[in-house]
Amino acid sequence: MTSIQLLGMAAGSISAITFLPQVIKTWKTKSAGDISLLMFTFATISVIMWLVYGIILRDIPIIYTNSLVLVCSLVMLYFKFRFGKKTTTTTEL
Amino acid sequence: MTSIQLLGMAAGSISAITFLPQVIKTWKTKSAGDISLLMFTFATISVIMWLVYGIILRDIPIIYTNSLVLVCSLVMLYFKFRFGKKTTTTTEL
Repeated sequence: MTSIQLLGMAAGSISAITFLPQVIKTWKTKSAGDISLLMFTFATISVIMWLVYGIILRDIPIIYTNSLVLVCSLVMLYFKFRFGKKTTTTTEL
Repeated sequence: MTSIQLLGMAAGSISAITFLPQVIKTWKTKSAGDISLLMFTFATISVIMWLVYGIILRDIPIIYTNSLVLVCSLVMLYFKFRFGKKTTTTTEL
């Protein structure tokens, strides 16, 4: 594997878990008032398109990465509808 | 251009603007308490790696897409530090 391929794989791995901290934070705080519904709608649509793209091209890294992102995006859409009206009153960063 | 390339371009275009609704929402509400700092930290790191990857491979779509995402991610990191302690009290979805 070349160093460029390694860089791409590392970038893809971090991309795959980008939404995970948000899922954990929202699950803990039960508060999603500040979060944009449209952001996770866009994320879900684009990730489904990437999945179809990856499946057609039989590109395992694209399928794997976007499957993880899709799960997080769908969980965040659920959290947004469930906890979107509530906001935290804590002062945490 | 094949239909698969078109699908990839469409997916990339939506990916590029995924964070834009969040930037607009946070700019309007001045509230980012519910947003995960780690999410945008991961996003910024991965997007910089994708940019380096795209520049090495001279891949214009990767460079273009990730430049837009990087701008939104950096703005969101700034908003998180600026507005992270405040939360909205509205009941909007």
